[in-house]
Amino acid sequence: MAEPAYYDVIIIGAGPAGLTAAIYTARARLNTLLVEIGLFGGQINNAELLENFPGFPDGIDGLELGGLMLKQAEKFGLKTLTGEVTGIEIKNGNKIVKTSEGDFAADSVIIAGGSQRQKLGVPGENEFAGKGVSYCATCDGALFKDRVVAVVGGGNAAVSEALHLARFASKVIVIHRRSELTAQAIIQERAFAEPKITFLLDTTIDAIEGEQFVRSLKLNNTKTGAKSTLEVSGIFVSIGSKPATDYVKGVLQLDPLGYVVTNEKMETSVPGIYAAGDIRANSARQAITAAGDGATAAVNIERSHHTRK
Amino acid sequence: MAEPAYYDVIIIGAGPAGLTAAIYTARARLNTLLVEIGLFGGQINNAELLENFPGFPDGIDGLELGGLMLKQAEKFGLKTLTGEVTGIEIKNGNKIVKTSEGDFAADSVIIAGGSQRQKLGVPGENEFAGKGVSYCATCDGALFKDRVVAVVGGGNAAVSEALHLARFASKVIVIHRRSELTAQAIIQERAFAEPKITFLLDTTIDAIEGEQFVRSLKLNNTKTGAKSTLEVSGIFVSIGSKPATDYVKGVLQLDPLGYVVTNEKMETSVPGIYAAGDIRANSARQAITAAGDGATAAVNIERSHHTRK
Repeated sequence: MAEPAYYDVIIIGAGPAGLTAAIYTARARLNTLLVEIGLFGGQINNAELLENFPGFPDGIDGLELGGLMLKQAEKFGLKTLTGEVTGIEIKNGNKIVKTSEGDFAADSVIIAGGSQRQKLGVPGENEFAGKGVSYCATCDGALFKDRVVAVVGGGNAAVSEALHLARFASKVIVIHRRSELTAQAIIQERAFAEPKITFLLDTTIDAIEGEQFVRSLKLNNTKTGAKSTLEVSGIFVSIGSKPATDYVKGVLQLDPLGYVVTNEKMETSVPGIYAAGDIRANSARQAITAAGDGATAAVNIERSHHTRK
Repeated sequence: MAEPAYYDVIIIGAGPAGLTAAIYTARARLNTLLVEIGLFGGQINNAELLENFPGFPDGIDGLELGGLMLKQAEKFGLKTLTGEVTGIEIKNGNKIVKTSEGDFAADSVIIAGGSQRQKLGVPGENEFAGKGVSYCATCDGALFKDRVVAVVGGGNAAVSEALHLARFASKVIVIHRRSELTAQAIIQERAFAEPKITFLLDTTIDAIEGEQFVRSLKLNNTKTGAKSTLEVSGIFVSIGSKPATDYVKGVLQLDPLGYVVTNEKMETSVPGIYAAGDIRANSARQAITAAGDGATAAVNIERSHHTRK
């Protein structure tokens, strides 16, 4: 059997983390392969306007930013592959990255496949994504100044997002399917003390409706079965997220939610394997922090090349 | 005596870390003051062309990038102050930031004052900064393809930089004032095995000369006193760096070299005080990683506002 093609670095996932890592490793003349299952650019492709990526005072379209990063990395010789990664094996010190397009060997690997926000799975959710449906208040909250918005969820993240949104919105309605929030007491107290925030408990969402943008939510009271309509300009879905780490279970140390554990050099529990961006535990989950992670992993890979036997 | 003016967040240092933190905190409607002693933009102001800041495939002038980031933060309401920070005190839970322009109080502080590369202190060094004199091989190495370059220093950083430069340059001469390198054995071995790298030991630099760009170095043999001239296109000075942390000695935990110790949330040893960028221990010392740090600190400050009594 033929030996798999060898790269100095294989990067899995082409969001801001993977693309920035690629800019760095390719520019350092490390032979680099970037593998992506979907669109190059990752989650930022869904952002109509990134207002907080530094260097773009007028904001930048997420799709455009991803394209610029890819162009930048390819300028330095990056090779790309569209395919699904199915596993990683350690063999004679090399890492074997198994993909739908065959196996590839690498000295170093960067896991940068991001995480997927859990969806509600209701009619209108996909149709209005980026048009009133959002999964990140830090990213999109400022776009809803003086508007009425809903937050779906009852955990720390959801209630924190409601508090964040109360800085901008005229009214924030937290919709939760249970009769009690699960957020920490102190966060709940803060939210109860904020006059802009109200709560709809025991409530689920049947549909998201609108024309060009979100206009209203169809609600269902889980105790009474009563149906109602709530007019909102935006709905922030905060019911958890899932990292794309199934293929490294048993290979890398993961946290209880499945995120890759790293140190601040982005090293994982396996020497030569790094993680960067939303897929790692304790990521701030922003395009710019993911990009920083990617560069950090790349710089440390390059340095490790000087100390490895 | 009047109470000092209060801010939600005071950021010290206006490089990529401080500016990105400011974009985030100001956009989150936290009342933010950014204090800088010198030029806004920080060290990137010295970079004629940043090739590795993601989103700019044709590269971007450092001064321009700093200006764009500042404009972006000011758009969200950032306030700025030119002045020197002389100390931080904790008083009734607030942080008092003492500056040459008076005292200011803050709920949270981000230390982002960067670090200063040690200079050789020889004629020509300042004159040719950015014109052949560099303090960062990762940043500028790719600009010296097929050129002859010198590296000054004998530690891990210097020899690693020589190895990095050997990917681009036709020849790399490591100049060290002592008769032995101090880099780790494994890094030395790598460098000895690299045919492009040669060594000039017991040698100091008297002057850097050139016209528009660096052309040559005036050398001095410390054992024989012999003088010589070495033609090079670039000189990378790697003799250490010093973080601007004198004013937080005894307040924050610092590492033995004076860098601020943080965790991966950019929290320091004092609750409510964060550090970001080159000033923190284990920074990868890149504009993009500093920017990522700044956003991470800002996001965690915003989150902490929801859980603080």
